[in-house]
Amino acid sequence: MPFHVDSETGRLKQVILHRPDLELKRLTPTNKDALLFDDVLWVKRAREEHDAFADALRDRGVRVHLLADLLAETLHSLDARQLVLDRVFDEREFGVLGTDRLRAYFDSLEPAALTTSLIGGVTKGELLDRVGTVPSVRLHAMAPDDFLLAPLPNHLFTRDTSCWAYDGVSVNPMKKRARRRETVHFEAVYGHHPLFEKGEFHRWSDGQQAYPATIEGGDVLVIGNGAVLVGMSERTTPQAVENLALRMFAAGSAQRVVAVTLPKSRSFMHLDTVMTMVSGDTFTRYAGLGMLPSCTIEPGTGGQGLKVTDHAPDQMDHAIADALGLPSINVLTPSQDVRSAEREQWDDGCNVLAVEPGVVVAYERNVTTNTYLRKSGIEVITVRGSELGRGRGGPRCMTCPIEREAA
Amino acid sequence: MPFHVDSETGRLKQVILHRPDLELKRLTPTNKDALLFDDVLWVKRAREEHDAFADALRDRGVRVHLLADLLAETLHSLDARQLVLDRVFDEREFGVLGTDRLRAYFDSLEPAALTTSLIGGVTKGELLDRVGTVPSVRLHAMAPDDFLLAPLPNHLFTRDTSCWAYDGVSVNPMKKRARRRETVHFEAVYGHHPLFEKGEFHRWSDGQQAYPATIEGGDVLVIGNGAVLVGMSERTTPQAVENLALRMFAAGSAQRVVAVTLPKSRSFMHLDTVMTMVSGDTFTRYAGLGMLPSCTIEPGTGGQGLKVTDHAPDQMDHAIADALGLPSINVLTPSQDVRSAEREQWDDGCNVLAVEPGVVVAYERNVTTNTYLRKSGIEVITVRGSELGRGRGGPRCMTCPIEREAA
Amino acid sequence: MPFHVDSETGRLKQVILHRPDLELKRLTPTNKDALLFDDVLWVKRAREEHDAFADALRDRGVRVHLLADLLAETLHSLDARQLVLDRVFDEREFGVLGTDRLRAYFDSLEPAALTTSLIGGVTKGELLDRVGTVPSVRLHAMAPDDFLLAPLPNHLFTRDTSCWAYDGVSVNPMKKRARRRETVHFEAVYGHHPLFEKGEFHRWSDGQQAYPATIEGGDVLVIGNGAVLVGMSERTTPQAVENLALRMFAAGSAQRVVAVTLPKSRSFMHLDTVMTMVSGDTFTRYAGLGMLPSCTIEPGTGGQGLKVTDHAPDQMDHAIADALGLPSINVLTPSQDVRSAEREQWDDGCNVLAVEPGVVVAYERNVTTNTYLRKSGIEVITVRGSELGRGRGGPRCMTCPIEREAA
Amino acid sequence: MPFHVDSETGRLKQVILHRPDLELKRLTPTNKDALLFDDVLWVKRAREEHDAFADALRDRGVRVHLLADLLAETLHSLDARQLVLDRVFDEREFGVLGTDRLRAYFDSLEPAALTTSLIGGVTKGELLDRVGTVPSVRLHAMAPDDFLLAPLPNHLFTRDTSCWAYDGVSVNPMKKRARRRETVHFEAVYGHHPLFEKGEFHRWSDGQQAYPATIEGGDVLVIGNGAVLVGMSERTTPQAVENLALRMFAAGSAQRVVAVTLPKSRSFMHLDTVMTMVSGDTFTRYAGLGMLPSCTIEPGTGGQGLKVTDHAPDQMDHAIADALGLPSINVLTPSQDVRSAEREQWDDGCNVLAVEPGVVVAYERNVTTNTYLRKSGIEVITVRGSELGRGRGGPRCMTCPIEREAA
Repeated sequence: MPFHVDSETGRLKQVILHRPDLELKRLTPTNKDALLFDDVLWVKRAREEHDAFADALRDRGVRVHLLADLLAETLHSLDARQLVLDRVFDEREFGVLGTDRLRAYFDSLEPAALTTSLIGGVTKGELLDRVGTVPSVRLHAMAPDDFLLAPLPNHLFTRDTSCWAYDGVSVNPMKKRARRRETVHFEAVYGHHPLFEKGEFHRWSDGQQAYPATIEGGDVLVIGNGAVLVGMSERTTPQAVENLALRMFAAGSAQRVVAVTLPKSRSFMHLDTVMTMVSGDTFTRYAGLGMLPSCTIEPGTGGQGLKVTDHAPDQMDHAIADALGLPSINVLTPSQDVRSAEREQWDDGCNVLAVEPGVVVAYERNVTTNTYLRKSGIEVITVRGSELGRGRGGPRCMTCPIEREAA
Repeated sequence: MPFHVDSETGRLKQVILHRPDLELKRLTPTNKDALLFDDVLWVKRAREEHDAFADALRDRGVRVHLLADLLAETLHSLDARQLVLDRVFDEREFGVLGTDRLRAYFDSLEPAALTTSLIGGVTKGELLDRVGTVPSVRLHAMAPDDFLLAPLPNHLFTRDTSCWAYDGVSVNPMKKRARRRETVHFEAVYGHHPLFEKGEFHRWSDGQQAYPATIEGGDVLVIGNGAVLVGMSERTTPQAVENLALRMFAAGSAQRVVAVTLPKSRSFMHLDTVMTMVSGDTFTRYAGLGMLPSCTIEPGTGGQGLKVTDHAPDQMDHAIADALGLPSINVLTPSQDVRSAEREQWDDGCNVLAVEPGVVVAYERNVTTNTYLRKSGIEVITVRGSELGRGRGGPRCMTCPIEREAA
Repeated sequence: MPFHVDSETGRLKQVILHRPDLELKRLTPTNKDALLFDDVLWVKRAREEHDAFADALRDRGVRVHLLADLLAETLHSLDARQLVLDRVFDEREFGVLGTDRLRAYFDSLEPAALTTSLIGGVTKGELLDRVGTVPSVRLHAMAPDDFLLAPLPNHLFTRDTSCWAYDGVSVNPMKKRARRRETVHFEAVYGHHPLFEKGEFHRWSDGQQAYPATIEGGDVLVIGNGAVLVGMSERTTPQAVENLALRMFAAGSAQRVVAVTLPKSRSFMHLDTVMTMVSGDTFTRYAGLGMLPSCTIEPGTGGQGLKVTDHAPDQMDHAIADALGLPSINVLTPSQDVRSAEREQWDDGCNVLAVEPGVVVAYERNVTTNTYLRKSGIEVITVRGSELGRGRGGPRCMTCPIEREAA
Repeated sequence: MPFHVDSETGRLKQVILHRPDLELKRLTPTNKDALLFDDVLWVKRAREEHDAFADALRDRGVRVHLLADLLAETLHSLDARQLVLDRVFDEREFGVLGTDRLRAYFDSLEPAALTTSLIGGVTKGELLDRVGTVPSVRLHAMAPDDFLLAPLPNHLFTRDTSCWAYDGVSVNPMKKRARRRETVHFEAVYGHHPLFEKGEFHRWSDGQQAYPATIEGGDVLVIGNGAVLVGMSERTTPQAVENLALRMFAAGSAQRVVAVTLPKSRSFMHLDTVMTMVSGDTFTRYAGLGMLPSCTIEPGTGGQGLKVTDHAPDQMDHAIADALGLPSINVLTPSQDVRSAEREQWDDGCNVLAVEPGVVVAYERNVTTNTYLRKSGIEVITVRGSELGRGRGGPRCMTCPIEREAA
């Protein structure tokens, strides 16, 4: 069975990335906050940085799939096209008068053009240039430069929208309005792209329909040994953790979930912004994270329900070690002054992507963290992120592994 | 047929109000913004003010129904109870582990106690005191004082959650998260309370299911002559206006909608915060509103679709007069300095409630506006609002007419 | 010597209050935040509430001076007038071209009219109506409704701008731009009004010149026994505490200062918003305050400098008791749920004003706190504050005692 | 006379830059807003970019002085040292107890170390490590990582703190607290560095003492022909414009000031963020700026006062042309969609630095603007700014010309 992710740090075989494009050119100082970016990006340079990142993975033997390619190939399927357009062109969003007309226009597009419009967005003015007038109070109330279909700049962070755990995938209901339309693109790809057509993998979720039981891949670490570590954050809810645990346990794919309660703030957006794994028993962690309350979730008695065991904050690392079947875990946190530590965490210093045990990809700018990892015996492959990093996401955030070995 | 609202200013016969209770005691400086209030209220005094307001209406021959009474009476019906609990206790909100147990507890409550919990909210601590432990990751992740079920302090503004237009009612999908649970309470009342059981009225909406095609009653003015004036605001969407127009036109209940585009900001939250009607051809309007772009919506050719005609801002009053079949409308705007005008608008100076043509209920604090209306021949009945007004809503916002004659 | 304040709770003899006027009518939803108010007030009602508050003090034998009266009487003095106008009409604020002309206009006003303009503010339009054109780039760049001279709505809180401690007064440098012009009014009154002309009292400060070493009276509690309790808050700086201690110690007026470090936030704006004194050994305190780090400041060895002794948070009450020469202090904190406690603190539940030991004036709305104080043997005189309280200040904030006996 | 700036675009001969250092390493996600930066910078890379920028200027024959070098050389002078330390170590800021001790410590430092501390800041912990305990309530109230002396990261933008106009310099009173300490460094350099010791130039200002009559160099364009164009912005006040005009006119150095009223917002922070000069009659301007109200300021009749002439917004360009003695000016604004234009303005697309007429230095990322300028016949030298640009300042902001020829 080709698709499965059995660890955080085992040999990485296949991933999905998204190459920056039109959607990032849509960002402005005015709309960037609503679109969840801290700054606008120079897209040409961001694309160069992303190409170099993809090449660094390929150099390590990783097969890289690009989301826009996958989606365009998927949209040759009428079923996939219908799935996506049904979800996007909802009368409650576009109005009963104009929805059919709008949908018909999009349906007339070739797969590549449709992909560009779905990800890059379309303004009212661009639409009217192409289709002429549409009778619609909804359109009437918009200015020419308003987005009819908003761009999806956060597709860059393919980690979040779907995440694999062992032999199944969770296509995730997303917390923020700016990301919700991403989900159906992955539903279409996993359901209809030839790569996945055999479909021999489990589904750990029901897609965006599960909203507001949201979960995002940045909060999910497949730590191995049949265990999963989940951050309950601003974006990942406990009710989604219940769903994930029940399904994985029912399939026998996992036997334990450790859930930690994160502070609900942008700087601790996802668990992987403050803590990731660099080898089978070793984590890198932000000094400012501290110990957090957690719980261990196991199958309930007789396979019914779940058994939930609370842990005090000082038991957090013990709970993780226990799930791994280890006496303890190693945690790497460089010594540096509080301001430098805060700066490197902000710049995704902890958000590294392992390509094999003890070998990680990291942004070059986090010199202190990278040096510390190297001194600790980790091989660090650096990539540039002067533009990419402005969305507050590092190598792990930008990568959705679909095949990875155990550590 | 008893229930119908044929105007904004004809004799007012029956209304639904909501008397302040537990839900307002839940407001704190910390949560007030999320709950859409500008300040906390002294609930005892707010209730006195509200009682006096209700009495002022009764003195004018208006029959006053209180929402909590209606809802408690409704919840004797098993169908109504099921409708409400189905909507509230969604696994996506409460988690697959605990939802049934939580729902069962609420289902065990007497109608009055259930009403109090639904409107006043329940904290995790209060729940656990009553039901003991519930195995649930969702509950595990909450602090004792966190709301398991949030309070609904905005039920005070019964105008918004449902609104009648001629011989039908729109039970409204609400924009803000803090108000969304209000809708099912009105669905239950209109569907199952003995008062409405004959059901001889139209439905202009599908309730909260229509979200995000939101519309709120503060934006809907039944100006008479088969016309409705709607503000497309922060909270009322053009797609909802399409729905309303199509259904009213199809039933023959109305023949025209005039839709004005409001600025999207809290101080222009709803159309009735800046413009209301005081008699059949006269409006009171905030000096700072200015003229706005609008459109006239009529049935489409052959009864299919809608015909939409744009108007430049300076044609706004003309479009309204035309809908009323009048050569022009009167607009009353007191002369005062810009700061006083801004203050009185903020304090709901324009948000008056007519009880018959030329007779309105207003907050006493808006002295300049009230004096001006009186000099213009309008009778102004004043009520106190030192506490009530802190939610930014006046007499019209707090009143849902269910029976009113033509002007 | 008539003027001295020897305690927080001894018999209150004379105070300065400020009756709400034009300056509060200037508040709007747009400017209220810059002017430090949470909401606009209905000034007519606020004045009624304030009159009732002043009467409640007079009923207890307190002599009430009104600031506007004091200031108008003071401005008959040419020296006082020059002091104020020199401070207000600074070329760096009004520009070298127009300052003399503006100052000359204000200097031409009668004392009462000048007082109204100084406290109530003047817009560009109002000025030009009175004086015709003024050549000035500074005026050129203003809109007609912009304030040439901003209103001073926070004069309502006379407690802050000057505060007496034993036989001296600190005319305070204020933190916030919106309050800085208040200071010179008190400098003029204390320096030139006939009431104070004998001048037999110490000066603990140098007025606004001391900025940014700011201190505000809401942070200063004259707890008795030659001790002063000071909150180092958002608005009161440690460097100002050094100044106050050095001067009081040098004069022999006080022997000890206890300084507590408050959180820097609006809800803990001043110490007296969370903790005040109700009798010689008893305080009322907000449940959410918690124990805070503090230090005791005493004269240095040989009378040189200061001796500073740190205390851990759990020693706070002990440090206060020790300064009072008592084995312990009583702290009254009503038991109530966290939300009610937060609400009453917000509504100045702790901000009571003692008129004699065990007798305090409080807002009526804080029912739980008031009931608790009564049960604890304190007599509570309630006054209305539905409008007054919108500036986040209670009876203590609104009162500047200038004569009070020891407890 | 060596120092004079006779135009915006004449041959550039000498400038002051500031090389990024410790002060920028102090930036964190938490303090960046207070320190006026939108993001943290990777200082090593920022310094490389800045070195390349300086080299680009040297390649064009410009002599580059670095501020830290100038300041360190200046601080060999006891007078300069006293000037700076007197201004920094104010008892109102540091408290009467500790100020002398703190000042003595700084005074004991070698010039280079003193420069580093003054610009890079010092935390309480760093200080105590060096000097042991200091008796001080002010220090007592600080946490170990709090800044005793804040860093000055905005020294990067040497344009603002002082600006030359013809044969004189304005050492500017700065608007924002985070920049106020920059001023005295330039006062010291211009007053005591050997380079300037002959002092044969005029002074157009009194330094930080003039606060709040603030003016910043980003708002001052020396357009030539004895004229100066000034933006009255968030940071530059009309009263400062009066001062500048009076002094320049009195010296006969300039004959006309054109002052435009800018919107008061961060994106239009200074005039040179939206409009700069590329040759003697040509400007580059942001499409979103629009026409603004302005006035022409000339010497008053008989050399007394000023003559101020208003212009309607549509006369803005005419007023500028008239000041230049030209029939009209050329304005270069590339055609691009509104979002791209907003992005490039944000990234300092308009903030170019001319090195001679028709030759400008610009950030490479603003491709559309740069291409348009080239097509319009302007030579554009590009430099990297992926890190530097995060402070929202471009080549002009980072450069203080001290010698430039007429265009």
